[in-house]
Amino acid sequence: MEFSSKLLENAVYEVSQLPGIGKRTALRLVLHLLKQPEQRTSNLATSLLDLRSKIQFCENCHNISDTVLCEICANPKRDDALVCVVEDIRDVMAIENTGQFRGKYHVLGGKISPMEGIGPQNLKIGTLVDKVKNGVIKELIFALSSTMEGDTTNFYIFRQIEGFEIKTSTIARGIAVGDELEYADEVTLGRSILNRVPFEGSLRQD
Amino acid sequence: MEFSSKLLENAVYEVSQLPGIGKRTALRLVLHLLKQPEQRTSNLATSLLDLRSKIQFCENCHNISDTVLCEICANPKRDDALVCVVEDIRDVMAIENTGQFRGKYHVLGGKISPMEGIGPQNLKIGTLVDKVKNGVIKELIFALSSTMEGDTTNFYIFRQIEGFEIKTSTIARGIAVGDELEYADEVTLGRSILNRVPFEGSLRQD
Ligand SMILES: [Zn+2]
Ligand SMILES: [Zn+2]
Repeated sequence: MEFSSKLLENAVYEVSQLPGIGKRTALRLVLHLLKQPEQRTSNLATSLLDLRSKIQFCENCHNISDTVLCEICANPKRDDALVCVVEDIRDVMAIENTGQFRGKYHVLGGKISPMEGIGPQNLKIGTLVDKVKNGVIKELIFALSSTMEGDTTNFYIFRQIEGFEIKTSTIARGIAVGDELEYADEVTLGRSILNRVPFEGSLRQD
Repeated sequence: MEFSSKLLENAVYEVSQLPGIGKRTALRLVLHLLKQPEQRTSNLATSLLDLRSKIQFCENCHNISDTVLCEICANPKRDDALVCVVEDIRDVMAIENTGQFRGKYHVLGGKISPMEGIGPQNLKIGTLVDKVKNGVIKELIFALSSTMEGDTTNFYIFRQIEGFEIKTSTIARGIAVGDELEYADEVTLGRSILNRVPFEGSLRQD
């Protein structure tokens, strides 16, 4: 693509660095902004800069939060003894949306994936194991996606907490194997929280 | 969608205002930026702000340009007498890419569309008619998309310049009716410039 303007070329380049956005789409988005009032672009830019520079993570569950403790962790009505382990804040949003879960979360920030160079040390596993050792947690619900990486991560955590008196479960597989949690419908996801099953601590054999 | 952070909610809202980007996609893009170095976000934001605040349009053809005259208009080897009328700078890029056109452009900035509330006064038609009246242009090539709006716009301009000694043509319909110019392959588009046909000054009857 040959651009008539360096400013335009730069903007298209930067937008096309976003995942799933090619050069053509980037150009379309940038030209759209040019047709809109200048305020639109500055609102967009400011919101991204603000988020990136002021972002905080809850010191208990690692969820994105504007305060030291997120609203869920700060809520005394939520059960400290029941903790749902998820990959990502999108999973917290999806489960909260079902209204079926009254415990707390632990956001790992991903799953173990040797292919992508993500090891246990890149995830928030240490603080989870610490919470188990401190004896506050009575039950862990693994709500990671049912993929090889999700299973590996469940299993890794399971081995770290073996020997502690704690119940472990995984959400019921009402969700199709391989599907991402965040795309599940509310009823299925809510039911899979209610019908959670004991975690066997072995890798899937298929 | 319930967000755990106002900063996150704002950023997702602003990104989801872009055309074709829903809330889920916006959230995915924003979370991606959070995983990247802060520099990525500031590069993106700065490039958009720079473009929006410093953007210029060529005073001759209305193409996006970093200078008063764009590179094409400033090029003495390009033929002033042959002008290709397009909707959008993406069409300029697409035609330039074929290497088949040695004239200049006139970028209207859209096409007449009563449905979208776009009338002739919203487009750069006046400056085109002025250029025709000044007698510099010998031939106009209409390269608007072959839709009802494109035809209406061609026809409107044609009526404005009737009586002046000027050849008008439209690009050959090698491009499927209804297709956008920018998605045509280079060979087809290049050929349609070479095989341009006289413009009859009547609306399509289909
Ligand atoms: Zn929290
Ligand atoms: Zn120009």
